[in-house]
Amino acid sequence: MNFRAMRKASIVSIGNEILTGQTVDTNAAYLCERLFSIGIPVVSCYTVGDEIERIVRTLNSASDDAEIVLVTGGLGPTDDDLTRQGFAQFLGSELQLQDELLQKMQRFFGRRNLQMSEKNKIQAYLPVGTKAIANELGTAPGIMTEFSEKLIFAMPGVPSEMKAMFEKSVLPKLKNIAAGQVIVLRKLRCFGAGESNIAQMLGNLMHRGRNPLINCTASSGIITLHIIASAANNDKAQKMVEKEEKMLREHLGDLVFGVDEQTLAEVVGRKLVREKKTIATAESCTGGILARLLTDIPGASEYFTQGWVTYSNAAKISELGVQAELIDEYGAVSETVACAMACGARKKAGTDFAIGITGIAGPTGATEHKPVGLVYICVESDSGSETKRFVFPQDRDSIRFRAAKTALNMVRLKLQN
Amino acid sequence: MNFRAMRKASIVSIGNEILTGQTVDTNAAYLCERLFSIGIPVVSCYTVGDEIERIVRTLNSASDDAEIVLVTGGLGPTDDDLTRQGFAQFLGSELQLQDELLQKMQRFFGRRNLQMSEKNKIQAYLPVGTKAIANELGTAPGIMTEFSEKLIFAMPGVPSEMKAMFEKSVLPKLKNIAAGQVIVLRKLRCFGAGESNIAQMLGNLMHRGRNPLINCTASSGIITLHIIASAANNDKAQKMVEKEEKMLREHLGDLVFGVDEQTLAEVVGRKLVREKKTIATAESCTGGILARLLTDIPGASEYFTQGWVTYSNAAKISELGVQAELIDEYGAVSETVACAMACGARKKAGTDFAIGITGIAGPTGATEHKPVGLVYICVESDSGSETKRFVFPQDRDSIRFRAAKTALNMVRLKLQN
Repeated sequence: MNFRAMRKASIVSIGNEILTGQTVDTNAAYLCERLFSIGIPVVSCYTVGDEIERIVRTLNSASDDAEIVLVTGGLGPTDDDLTRQGFAQFLGSELQLQDELLQKMQRFFGRRNLQMSEKNKIQAYLPVGTKAIANELGTAPGIMTEFSEKLIFAMPGVPSEMKAMFEKSVLPKLKNIAAGQVIVLRKLRCFGAGESNIAQMLGNLMHRGRNPLINCTASSGIITLHIIASAANNDKAQKMVEKEEKMLREHLGDLVFGVDEQTLAEVVGRKLVREKKTIATAESCTGGILARLLTDIPGASEYFTQGWVTYSNAAKISELGVQAELIDEYGAVSETVACAMACGARKKAGTDFAIGITGIAGPTGATEHKPVGLVYICVESDSGSETKRFVFPQDRDSIRFRAAKTALNMVRLKLQN
Repeated sequence: MNFRAMRKASIVSIGNEILTGQTVDTNAAYLCERLFSIGIPVVSCYTVGDEIERIVRTLNSASDDAEIVLVTGGLGPTDDDLTRQGFAQFLGSELQLQDELLQKMQRFFGRRNLQMSEKNKIQAYLPVGTKAIANELGTAPGIMTEFSEKLIFAMPGVPSEMKAMFEKSVLPKLKNIAAGQVIVLRKLRCFGAGESNIAQMLGNLMHRGRNPLINCTASSGIITLHIIASAANNDKAQKMVEKEEKMLREHLGDLVFGVDEQTLAEVVGRKLVREKKTIATAESCTGGILARLLTDIPGASEYFTQGWVTYSNAAKISELGVQAELIDEYGAVSETVACAMACGARKKAGTDFAIGITGIAGPTGATEHKPVGLVYICVESDSGSETKRFVFPQDRDSIRFRAAKTALNMVRLKLQN
């Protein structure tokens, strides 16, 4: 894919509230995704405070980076909203009152039986050489201009107003530009190997400059491969993605569990429904996370009947029938107890599968032979029980989630074979 | 407050996954907030893709803007992780293998009985003239340098690794720098009323331009008030915050459950420990979320002994002794069944408190009289049982989490009185 030959975009977010961390800038992420989906790559994002000089400097940088610049924020009526002034200075022009905009605003307030404050009047000013973009949800119009072969749009910072304005007025203009080049994205979701192992398995496939391009992201054990194909039309790009997906699946085999936004729980749930199988859970260190992941999926009641969170030894004994002697001899965190928990749960629940999990989530509880992160997971079914030992890295939260996901993955592989 | 006289910071986020909108950049927001809280204003944030030339250009811009530059992302082991190379080029130096780092990484893999892949070796390289920052949660060390009176830190993009590294190794260095003007931030965490209700209760206190300034953010039912005081020294700012906190607490009463990063589960856990009380859970629609929230807290075994996820009616009957007739007469989603679940759980677990939750998380399962979002929560204790009916808005995920948090809040208020 030749990104360089295509129109590119840069995004500028303006607002002190982002720089103080009081507001997470979701506008930029939204715009990135929308632009990407119509084949316009975003090459840079900037965030600056409400200060004219910095706004001008940033508009210069952004329009150096790309042919399309999307600005959000700083169009409100208060003294710290300075995007309008910054935009004018960037263009080397001045602000001019637009009678038509003023009347429109007066009607906006009139319809709501509100008095328009003197402050609002600033929103009827535009830099000379720009046009207003209608705002259907608020008083601040957007601003657009074409300036030395660059297209620049400024939109309000309030996400609902920005999105409505973008979808209705900005996107259609951009779509015309993006014609001729289409990007198709597909994600392959993997579990069971680290990012670097997967990179090694794929070798040259991950080199930059290829089309399709393969990007890789990792989040709590889930490795996501993004296949990004660009072509002259949708069909072509689609076919490229399909071919690439097939090849990646051949390389990665069982590691691939799903596509796009699928979760392990969703994939396991579908397989259980298809096979008409049921499942129950017996959790110690994961404290309910496994049951929660399973029941995240609407309709989980079709295959998930019940779960136990047996946090204390007494509960393991009374609820799941784990023998006290086993706990005494092997310890609560042991292969034997994980297995006894799964067996007990399956027996009581009468399900096809049951999972037992016991481990040390930390930060305390480790012994000389049992480190923080040690987890035993047992999957019990008609074909017997399979127990595995893991030492998960990182903190309590990561260990607990990794253990629950690993348990789901063990069930997935069992259902596959 | 004279920001100009102080050291400033700029933040650089690196990663194609941000520019394609696949990942929302929460790292930048986190760093902005943390820096702000110690009196270092962030003046700009940049996001760029994994491309050496752009990384170098952005490092130049960021170090033009500010004396402190914090970089996140692009330190992974794969070919598209190019921050290391970009950093070296920016400094005009080269990458050099650090034997000590290599050995450390080999030990990291060894402890986990994993084979270190050849790809990982790149993480043991540093630009000449920089130092490694220890990464306690992963393999990628951070990088730091002082370069023509600028302090530059590069950290991993994985949020948990970045946060741990920032708090442990970067923040202490920055604290020494931030002298002169001090900003003290305190958060008051509230539950039980909406954002606009709280804003109305506080009235003029939330006006801008005050010092302390009060900002308000809302996230899945938790309303957080940020008290931001700035003064010439820490004592002064601290006293301003304390005075403000006292006043806000008088206005808000029981709605305030904690401060700073405290969660409802943590606050409930502390109260249970202090009162030497224990708790058990019986969940239907929340499917383990309540048990998970309780066991998120290290040391939860002191007060949480066990939980049941009785998703099917059969499980409610067999595990918790709910009478089949009650389910037939009132339905599984009813005050009576919530109460019977809590009673059964308390009896079997022998705890001081037990919580029963039953409801309709959706998207299906609603009837004419029982809409999606309807949830009954019962708290059972020596002082009898208290059952409340709720209709939570929004989607499955929100309904489930809101129900679990509301249950925790009911226990908190019971323990308070």
